Amino acid sequence: MPSSRWTTWAWMLLLPGCAIGWPKQSSSATSDIRNCTTSPPFLPPTVTDTSAQLNALRQRMQFYNISAYIVPATDAHMSEYIAERDARLAWISGFTGSAGTGVVTTKKAALWTDSRYWTQAERQMDCNWELQKIVWTDSIGEWLLQEIPAGENIGLDPFLFSIDLWNSYARVLQGSSRTLVPIEDNLVDLVWGSQRPPLPTSEIYLLPETFTGSTWQEKVSGIRSQMEQHSRSPTAVLLSALEETAWLFNLRGDDISYNPVFYSYALLTTSDISLFVDRNRLSAEALQSLSAQCPGPLCVQVEEYDQVRASVQAYAQGDVQVWIGTEYTTYGLYGVIPQDKLVESSYSPVMTTKAVKNAKEQALLKAAHVRDAVAMIQYLLWLEKNVPKGSVDEFSGARYVDKLRREKEHCRGASFETISASGLNAALAHYSPSNVSSRKLSVDEMYLSDSGGQYLDGTTDITRTVHWGEPSPFQKEAYTRVLMGNIDLARLVFPSETSGRVVEAFARRALWEVGLNYGHGTGHGIGNFLSVHEWPVGFQSNNVPLVKGMFTSIEPGYYQEGEFGIRIEDVALVVEAQTKHGAGEKAHLTFEVVSLVPYDRNLIDISFLSEDQIQYLNTYYETIRQRVGPELQRRQLEEEYEWLRRNTQPFSRGTLVATSLGTLAITSLVSTLLPDRQA
Amino acid sequence: MPSSRWTTWAWMLLLPGCAIGWPKQSSSATSDIRNCTTSPPFLPPTVTDTSAQLNALRQRMQFYNISAYIVPATDAHMSEYIAERDARLAWISGFTGSAGTGVVTTKKAALWTDSRYWTQAERQMDCNWELQKIVWTDSIGEWLLQEIPAGENIGLDPFLFSIDLWNSYARVLQGSSRTLVPIEDNLVDLVWGSQRPPLPTSEIYLLPETFTGSTWQEKVSGIRSQMEQHSRSPTAVLLSALEETAWLFNLRGDDISYNPVFYSYALLTTSDISLFVDRNRLSAEALQSLSAQCPGPLCVQVEEYDQVRASVQAYAQGDVQVWIGTEYTTYGLYGVIPQDKLVESSYSPVMTTKAVKNAKEQALLKAAHVRDAVAMIQYLLWLEKNVPKGSVDEFSGARYVDKLRREKEHCRGASFETISASGLNAALAHYSPSNVSSRKLSVDEMYLSDSGGQYLDGTTDITRTVHWGEPSPFQKEAYTRVLMGNIDLARLVFPSETSGRVVEAFARRALWEVGLNYGHGTGHGIGNFLSVHEWPVGFQSNNVPLVKGMFTSIEPGYYQEGEFGIRIEDVALVVEAQTKHGAGEKAHLTFEVVSLVPYDRNLIDISFLSEDQIQYLNTYYETIRQRVGPELQRRQLEEEYEWLRRNTQPFSRGTLVATSLGTLAITSLVSTLLPDRQA
Repeated sequence: MPSSRWTTWAWMLLLPGCAIGWPKQSSSATSDIRNCTTSPPFLPPTVTDTSAQLNALRQRMQFYNISAYIVPATDAHMSEYIAERDARLAWISGFTGSAGTGVVTTKKAALWTDSRYWTQAERQMDCNWELQKIVWTDSIGEWLLQEIPAGENIGLDPFLFSIDLWNSYARVLQGSSRTLVPIEDNLVDLVWGSQRPPLPTSEIYLLPETFTGSTWQEKVSGIRSQMEQHSRSPTAVLLSALEETAWLFNLRGDDISYNPVFYSYALLTTSDISLFVDRNRLSAEALQSLSAQCPGPLCVQVEEYDQVRASVQAYAQGDVQVWIGTEYTTYGLYGVIPQDKLVESSYSPVMTTKAVKNAKEQALLKAAHVRDAVAMIQYLLWLEKNVPKGSVDEFSGARYVDKLRREKEHCRGASFETISASGLNAALAHYSPSNVSSRKLSVDEMYLSDSGGQYLDGTTDITRTVHWGEPSPFQKEAYTRVLMGNIDLARLVFPSETSGRVVEAFARRALWEVGLNYGHGTGHGIGNFLSVHEWPVGFQSNNVPLVKGMFTSIEPGYYQEGEFGIRIEDVALVVEAQTKHGAGEKAHLTFEVVSLVPYDRNLIDISFLSEDQIQYLNTYYETIRQRVGPELQRRQLEEEYEWLRRNTQPFSRGTLVATSLGTLAITSLVSTLLPDRQA
Repeated sequence: MPSSRWTTWAWMLLLPGCAIGWPKQSSSATSDIRNCTTSPPFLPPTVTDTSAQLNALRQRMQFYNISAYIVPATDAHMSEYIAERDARLAWISGFTGSAGTGVVTTKKAALWTDSRYWTQAERQMDCNWELQKIVWTDSIGEWLLQEIPAGENIGLDPFLFSIDLWNSYARVLQGSSRTLVPIEDNLVDLVWGSQRPPLPTSEIYLLPETFTGSTWQEKVSGIRSQMEQHSRSPTAVLLSALEETAWLFNLRGDDISYNPVFYSYALLTTSDISLFVDRNRLSAEALQSLSAQCPGPLCVQVEEYDQVRASVQAYAQGDVQVWIGTEYTTYGLYGVIPQDKLVESSYSPVMTTKAVKNAKEQALLKAAHVRDAVAMIQYLLWLEKNVPKGSVDEFSGARYVDKLRREKEHCRGASFETISASGLNAALAHYSPSNVSSRKLSVDEMYLSDSGGQYLDGTTDITRTVHWGEPSPFQKEAYTRVLMGNIDLARLVFPSETSGRVVEAFARRALWEVGLNYGHGTGHGIGNFLSVHEWPVGFQSNNVPLVKGMFTSIEPGYYQEGEFGIRIEDVALVVEAQTKHGAGEKAHLTFEVVSLVPYDRNLIDISFLSEDQIQYLNTYYETIRQRVGPELQRRQLEEEYEWLRRNTQPFSRGTLVATSLGTLAITSLVSTLLPDRQA
């Protein structure tokens, strides 16, 4: 699935060509689905009436003497996916997309979101809200300068903004005589009151050793050596992303749908470990594991979640140096550490260590992908049989593939809300069907399925786009060019530690060549039973350089608004490449695709592919046969096995030679070989 | 020529794979040419004895109570190329490379420079200086933390550090109890004393209207409208890069070798214009042009160069907003403007406007390139005739190509010190020969020529690598892969406003594929009779997005230390691309190569090229014939005309089909066509 939040503002800023996939949407505000100029306004039935919420919020704003209040879509851990109780933006605006920022002034309310979500926002927001279809922070700043008179205040919750984001707001407003005011009481929460969903109470459990790459004690020791080796000799690392504590302590929870994480912070010092979490929720086994080596440097002291700020503040009184990741530590925590005691990097050492999977973690993830391929192949065959009968719609399809995954060993459900989109719905990159609005799948339309599973051994995420009838030549060309992008990036050889940002254009070149593009990122990290978008790996400017052992998705697409959408997504492992002349200290790298599901032959126009691309494809298909074939046979899925054989037939080079060589070349070759037959 | 300073630290940080071109050099300090452990030390004869300078500097440091002093290689305008009087780093260290930073402590002295300059630094520095072969600011900071005890001071000249660079030093030292102390007296200058070269006195002249794209009044009006349209409504733009004032006022000088600029600043406000320059140096014509519309908003008041700080400080007392470019404004000027009166962007509107050439500027630059091609073709033919006789060395070659350029209309000399490097010398990307050390050119070695001219209508920069004998298969492969990189980037189609950073890997892919790479940037902006590296265009992370009308070099290379060096450099104009499906608001772009000199056929192994690459090459060669052929005939350069015809023959597709199709494909095609002849 294309990645969201942290990433989005970055690529929106840095890849201005990115909105090309949605040309009509990017044109102007007049294309709004809503018509707020008539009386009563024309609104889709899906909008939420937000007048009461906004009135209540504005009263609170008056009390705090602020003229604008900024409401982001994230939580206190800068999570990309959030729990219901953190869905403040959705509650105040009606908009439920995972990326966006709302600003409420005394008179107006506006939402900024990226092009993936424009249509959804128009379908969900009433006329209280205007939609801003432009890049974020700068644009929000300029809008605020326009709407808020000099001398007035702009409020925000310091626990919902990363340091970096806070600073970029500060920069935009710098010298403008408008003041950013941190307000620790969240004003939306105050208004939301008792209606706000409560804190979770479900169990936080220990991940069995079979499914972990190292014990948590080994991980803690590894982080402590990195602290020692750091030139600033930090005395502590503050962990505030939920994935950090889950990974470090081999613990999991279910506080956020699809993401097996739990509300927590941790402060790991050279001598102590504090885990800030609701102690009552820890399983007996988890508590035992955390306290087995108490007292001592490997004893985890459990403190209350709410105590984190006070504890960090107290710790920061001493002669200490606290290492934090500025991409996701909030201004609220950052503010309690004196500037000269901060060791700042974009990501904490826990984040960067987690990003590189060891041999066991790699094997676990690959095993999960074999089971996931079985589910996907079952689904594709089922579609092939049932779509022509007219018995499948987007929602029933999504439910079916979810069910197929859940039946597999170690599966704990989907890794995100399944995207199942037919025809024009697939042009919305993040469309998910519901049981009230679901389009019937048809042999006359393209269908896009983007789904994944949470298995105890690994998280999966795969997109296949299919057509069971006769695609148009343009659809075939667009699909083939998306596939070429996928292949070109997957088979690229590049030096170790190259930034993903530098190579992601290889996934776009085949589209660019004919004036096409797509408006989302090209991939995101993924790992072992954690968030489907596992930072900081990927192809955005704020991702870390690629090294051996990282997993990332590769997912180019193409979206023709009002008609169809294409995306082809695989997960790939960064591996060492064997090169002809490569030697020396730094290895060259390439990708090994670990998603094992063939592409739709009906949509591939082989004449566009180079020989190298075809050879790559045939090798990949051979790998699929070798890894998934035996698994299908073991499960006695004979029909699926036959489907796999059929769909992984090698593409013929003969066809290629005939099709792709220019007439001139063929003629000259023929005239060399067959002088007598020439006219 | 590969670009330097501003750029270098950025790509060194962001492209960690970049040192691969010099594998042995990157290994460790033990490979130092110098041996400082013997007594007396073993040193190349080319080193400078720096003991006296360092002693004197250390006395000054003691007086100012600082434990370390940082000496950069730039001037107060953050110029990449500097005048002799600003060559402080060279004077104190002996190292004359254009990129580097020196740090002197009470006991040690160390120089940081990038891999292009490592060998040069070892050949020039005595044992007082250690060479640091790692990335810069962070590494300098860590070294300082090691060498300087807590509580002590680190001094630097605030006029020699950009805001951005100052901030990154501050960040590295943050919380370490070492203080950065700005010292306005430059300590090296104090020690240098009367030996320091004096201020220039040569004339500053008006560029004739024939050679300018717009009048300076038109340019000023354009900048003022950008100020009006800016959301912060800046009241002034402060210009501190020398190219900014030269371009804005259509003035030129000769204060820096090869760069027709002059020491100056400007403060352009909504109502006034101040040019800070030595008034006595302005030609009568220039003075007349600047004052023709006095008094009024288009009247240029000339103030003394040294007055800039005081004048900006006085201006900043008012109700003003000053727009500055943070990439190159120094901390010394930035510091006199209150924070809330600063409008910061990476580049000033003058810098970004200059980057996009209008139709007239494009035509001027293209015309200069035709004359430049004539000079290069004359040179390549001359080499072909004279190298086999053994009568050419690197230095005489360089002098000869410089002479050929100088003879051309509107030429004002070379645009940088000509790089003329044979055999192993070419592995040093910035090697220039001298009359004391110059290698003889031979038919048994590869030869690299990187040179350019300053014409009144345009600046040129071109690199050709040639071999007159029998190159090894590896040399041919490496050359062909460098050429493939050049072609792949030049023919790339990409959306408007794509960042150069995102596409530069296309110039590396063919090398990466076999484990090779190069350790410098892929290109730099270039324009109309200004610095050969014209910012902010190019392929680095701190360059601006590519739009129609920009000129950039494209210059991949490959360097085999101790053996040979390859670089193929062309200048290209960003133009609109015609695409099959491209429509909508944002055009797609591609490059039009305006350097018009064929590549060395002797070094091209056609079997590596794809059909598309060959077709591109043949089209480019046809353009060369059409544009340069008539010019050669007009000049009655018959032999050169024949050489051009010979060297731009289209490459044969027949050859390609036979060579590049795999045996399998050929066999299957043959078996289809000639069933009877099969064994």
